[in-house]
Amino acid sequence: MKVLIVHAHPEPKSFTAALRDQAVTTLEDQGHEVQVSDLYAMNWNPVASADDFSSRENPEYLVYALEQRLGVKSQSLAPDIQQELDKLLWADLLILNFPIFWFSAPAMLKGWIDRVLVSGVCYGGKRFYDQGGLSGKKALVSVTLGGREHMFGDGAIHGPLEDMLRPILRGTLAYVGFDVLEPFVAWHVPYISDEARKEFLLGYQQRLQHLSDEQPMVFPRLSQFDEALYPLPV
Amino acid sequence: MKVLIVHAHPEPKSFTAALRDQAVTTLEDQGHEVQVSDLYAMNWNPVASADDFSSRENPEYLVYALEQRLGVKSQSLAPDIQQELDKLLWADLLILNFPIFWFSAPAMLKGWIDRVLVSGVCYGGKRFYDQGGLSGKKALVSVTLGGREHMFGDGAIHGPLEDMLRPILRGTLAYVGFDVLEPFVAWHVPYISDEARKEFLLGYQQRLQHLSDEQPMVFPRLSQFDEALYPLPV
Repeated sequence: MKVLIVHAHPEPKSFTAALRDQAVTTLEDQGHEVQVSDLYAMNWNPVASADDFSSRENPEYLVYALEQRLGVKSQSLAPDIQQELDKLLWADLLILNFPIFWFSAPAMLKGWIDRVLVSGVCYGGKRFYDQGGLSGKKALVSVTLGGREHMFGDGAIHGPLEDMLRPILRGTLAYVGFDVLEPFVAWHVPYISDEARKEFLLGYQQRLQHLSDEQPMVFPRLSQFDEALYPLPV
Repeated sequence: MKVLIVHAHPEPKSFTAALRDQAVTTLEDQGHEVQVSDLYAMNWNPVASADDFSSRENPEYLVYALEQRLGVKSQSLAPDIQQELDKLLWADLLILNFPIFWFSAPAMLKGWIDRVLVSGVCYGGKRFYDQGGLSGKKALVSVTLGGREHMFGDGAIHGPLEDMLRPILRGTLAYVGFDVLEPFVAWHVPYISDEARKEFLLGYQQRLQHLSDEQPMVFPRLSQFDEALYPLPV
């Protein structure tokens, strides 16, 4: 398996980075090929803008997704985007590895999503959800957060974490066709003992060793909807 | 009323910018004071990093929220953050005005959230949700998107838009104490007629003229939870 880990944390010695390293070691030990995009180390530019295209279909008015479609065809995507897109298309498994900032991804990683998941390749027209451009690939979100586990779930103060992560799990990864695995979550990280952190690393290792046994999360399939995307009778 | 509009769109002539201008005009005509943070025009830096603090509590290891707390006390926040924080604290109403990118905010705006909603002022300890640091203020999200209205809602292909916007509406705005109003949504914007766009602008104007009549969305209150944040019996 070919694996791309996209990692975004402002502290190079963070526990989130330890999860990244655990994934690299575990997956390579199993014979997989691994590439890492460490967005802070790369000084990644997260801002989608007109500068992302060396030539434009419409230089007067920017419709970002339209220019992405042209940019793919005419090879006019910015080199940093093209490089990440190539890694993404190479990979069989994408891991997004990040600390939860405001119940979602840090801007650094959001800007990787905004710029790299280009229209015309990853989605477009009726190619989304199970018909998405990246179908056949798997995705795993591995996150660290400050909250305790009992603060999440039905009836808990923040509700289910999966509901907070919905724009990423469903609106992004499932949308472009990935088989999305249950997130790996390390809770309460800034406040726990080294021993508890080691437990998380061990748990993550064990999950990574058996990913192929996992069933992906369930999301809409286009066959459940008509041509205009109204739901069909069940 | 004092109003801060935070606007993020890569195209200066976008319809999203027209919504921003509509809000400025309408609110000023009603006698309100309005400031606009146009993040692309400001060349806003969306990346939370160690550079955000001119002095550090722990120069060896970055815990971003901890450094924010110190930074507020010691006035060592980066000037661009302090400036936005001052505007935020000045405002009675915050409007986040943006195009939906991946069912959430563009990275540019996510980075405003990551950097400006500083711990120690906007939240911290047990100061969140109705006890949040910005309680007493109102917030409105006004968004444009490509999807059609029938693609959102219960049973629709993407589910309710409010569920996709949960990390912003609940996890961010309600979390720091805002009374969060129902989002204003302009659907299918890239594909509609000028007439239909004018309808959206008019509808937005009418909403803005009567915001004080609106009831905010309902979110958890800390009084529903015990000291350890387990839910209390209803």
